[in-house]
Amino acid sequence: MKNRVLSELGRLTKPPPISWLMAAAIAKPGLISLAAGFTDHETLPIDECLVALRRILGQKRSGQAALQYGTTAGHLKLRKLTADRLHSLDGTQNNPGVTPERIVLTNGSQQLLYMVTEALCDPGDIVLVEDPTYFVYLGILQSHGVNARGIRLQKDGLDVEQLKRVLQELKRKNQLARLKLLYIVSYYQNPSGTTTSFDKKREILNVLRSFERAAGHPIYLIEDAAYRELRFDGPGERSSLALENAAARVIYAGTYSKPFATGIRVGFAILPHPLLNTVLNIKGNHDFGSSNFLQHLLADTMESGAYEQHLAVLKERYRKKARVMLDAMKSHFPAWVQWQVPRGGLYFWATVSAKVATGMKSKLFREALKKNVLYVPGELCYCHDPARRVPNHEMRISFGAENPAKLREGIKRLGAALNWLRP
Amino acid sequence: MKNRVLSELGRLTKPPPISWLMAAAIAKPGLISLAAGFTDHETLPIDECLVALRRILGQKRSGQAALQYGTTAGHLKLRKLTADRLHSLDGTQNNPGVTPERIVLTNGSQQLLYMVTEALCDPGDIVLVEDPTYFVYLGILQSHGVNARGIRLQKDGLDVEQLKRVLQELKRKNQLARLKLLYIVSYYQNPSGTTTSFDKKREILNVLRSFERAAGHPIYLIEDAAYRELRFDGPGERSSLALENAAARVIYAGTYSKPFATGIRVGFAILPHPLLNTVLNIKGNHDFGSSNFLQHLLADTMESGAYEQHLAVLKERYRKKARVMLDAMKSHFPAWVQWQVPRGGLYFWATVSAKVATGMKSKLFREALKKNVLYVPGELCYCHDPARRVPNHEMRISFGAENPAKLREGIKRLGAALNWLRP
Repeated sequence: MKNRVLSELGRLTKPPPISWLMAAAIAKPGLISLAAGFTDHETLPIDECLVALRRILGQKRSGQAALQYGTTAGHLKLRKLTADRLHSLDGTQNNPGVTPERIVLTNGSQQLLYMVTEALCDPGDIVLVEDPTYFVYLGILQSHGVNARGIRLQKDGLDVEQLKRVLQELKRKNQLARLKLLYIVSYYQNPSGTTTSFDKKREILNVLRSFERAAGHPIYLIEDAAYRELRFDGPGERSSLALENAAARVIYAGTYSKPFATGIRVGFAILPHPLLNTVLNIKGNHDFGSSNFLQHLLADTMESGAYEQHLAVLKERYRKKARVMLDAMKSHFPAWVQWQVPRGGLYFWATVSAKVATGMKSKLFREALKKNVLYVPGELCYCHDPARRVPNHEMRISFGAENPAKLREGIKRLGAALNWLRP
Repeated sequence: MKNRVLSELGRLTKPPPISWLMAAAIAKPGLISLAAGFTDHETLPIDECLVALRRILGQKRSGQAALQYGTTAGHLKLRKLTADRLHSLDGTQNNPGVTPERIVLTNGSQQLLYMVTEALCDPGDIVLVEDPTYFVYLGILQSHGVNARGIRLQKDGLDVEQLKRVLQELKRKNQLARLKLLYIVSYYQNPSGTTTSFDKKREILNVLRSFERAAGHPIYLIEDAAYRELRFDGPGERSSLALENAAARVIYAGTYSKPFATGIRVGFAILPHPLLNTVLNIKGNHDFGSSNFLQHLLADTMESGAYEQHLAVLKERYRKKARVMLDAMKSHFPAWVQWQVPRGGLYFWATVSAKVATGMKSKLFREALKKNVLYVPGELCYCHDPARRVPNHEMRISFGAENPAKLREGIKRLGAALNWLRP
């Protein structure tokens, strides 16, 4: 037929690049996937969930409350516990910007990223992202016809000087009115493992604010803290919520999926007014509230201390698995592969020789697949920024899902593929 | 500041009209809400859930599977059980159009309605709806800048002659290319209680197809069957999935929230190719899959028979509560209030005298609120169709949430408000 029935968004929305990788993993039973961002299988909190659910469903009153509809913003007790937890993580017991009233509970933090983008961005608008960044967020931008610009990463977060240059350029070209937000993944970043320092968060927010007059509207900062709780040890950096002027500009996205159980999809966000209301209205149309049952389950595990106890186990588990992967890479990877050691999260980000491509169509990727091991090609984590070519010499390698024996074997196979290339 | 930071969607998305009603209900503790579409509180399946969860979490293997990420389309076993259930409801054991591969599991059926609208509709497009219809769907259309046209309801579903006239008019005005779909709530409709007959579904689909050549693209039929399982007795009408030519055009939206537990938000849909892939891609961006844990819970209750047993209890409960409400209306409402008796669902739809307004700003609504009883004003359930004024003489009265004693008292109060008016 001659006309198109799909909307612009329907035509622009592509399958996530990783869906092909996932399908490949399912189709090859012997394959070891170092690609998936799945969390550790063996430590999933089965007993903790059963204890909590016995308590909730063991009483008529609490059982009924959990099985009935909740509100669009989500279970008040869990929002209170979330605010308390953020105060505790940031060491800001009385931060007036972090209150249950400013929190919305979502289907993982992913839904929040989607709704904020819907709320702020029209086709042709501009969003700044880290270079590289979380590839599913790039998919969300692409589906909404939004242009992404990449700001390269340094060891402590994005390059503020480049950020300023890009903002100056947008100002010069009269495009600042189209710039709606900057998106950062601030802890053990997906994919690079980078953590943004608190000082850098302050710098970033100040730079954004300094361009608001020229933009003619607020420029928001999304801090995606999905991996924050998965630090191997130590106290960790404070979030941008602890900045003096955060309340009006920072959108903080967190999740309980990764630090507890990915089968239980509960994320949360702190949003500035009046954007909070817009996002709540959008969520009213999406689903008028996430599963109340899951929110009651999480609130119980947080109140009882089971959440915290399980998290300690999980962090130790990832610390050990990261160590296993590191040792295996040292043993099996050639000298022309380099990496930083992350302080938390699920990923190593390895850079190969400039002569070697890592992309989906590369010899290396095909050889790895032949040897039954899968990684995420770095190219998938870069936006289409006209200011540079998409880098094609990196691999995201995850120690999240597989057990230590599989991690060793997977890295051995990947090492064999790398050595087979001899660039 | 001089420029707007919100997107067009962000500006167009309004709070659901019922959110005000909900807030009013919370603010007045003695208030009896006949407005909420909440489901029966006392029969929520607490024990059934605990039994299922003990089984799932009692085994390491099944516990881990439930607590890990699933796929974007959803848990295969639940998709198989869903296909089987639809075959059984429709009496079509071998319908090749209803297969697990064509099913996607969602956060309630609401998410499906949102994603399909995103996939098909640009601002300025046209969607046909029943007149009246489910008001949250009107909110979704409004947020996407879509124009709704209403097709009035008869006793067995929408008026096919009016449907033809509207389609002819759109054709004449060269607007058919903008028409993407027709949305019906086919069982015990929210708000009117109307059920669409199978014959009428066939007529509707044939009429839509006859205009496709002029539209230049497919015109889809969304059958929202949210209340299908809540019939008081008897076998019920077949769905449009049982029509010969359904597979290419029918989007069937169902839910397990209302027939089981609303705190567990699992909906499902059958989608035609290639729209299925578009919706899966959009869901990849929304949340890359609904909570796997909830899907495993539902699959277990369906396999064990607990779902079916609980549904029988629930249906009997609603049948009795509808009877209680009916008897109370006969006792307390004046003769100038009329209604149809629904065969299932959660709602009575009462029409008052043409001299009496029922809207949010009406004397009746204010008097009812003063007497501590709440209903949904009919006006909220009508789209802004330039072809007619919004009717303002109806009330949606729900027997879903309150217990029989409260229903009696609520209708008594509403009767007192009606009689106080003496039109």
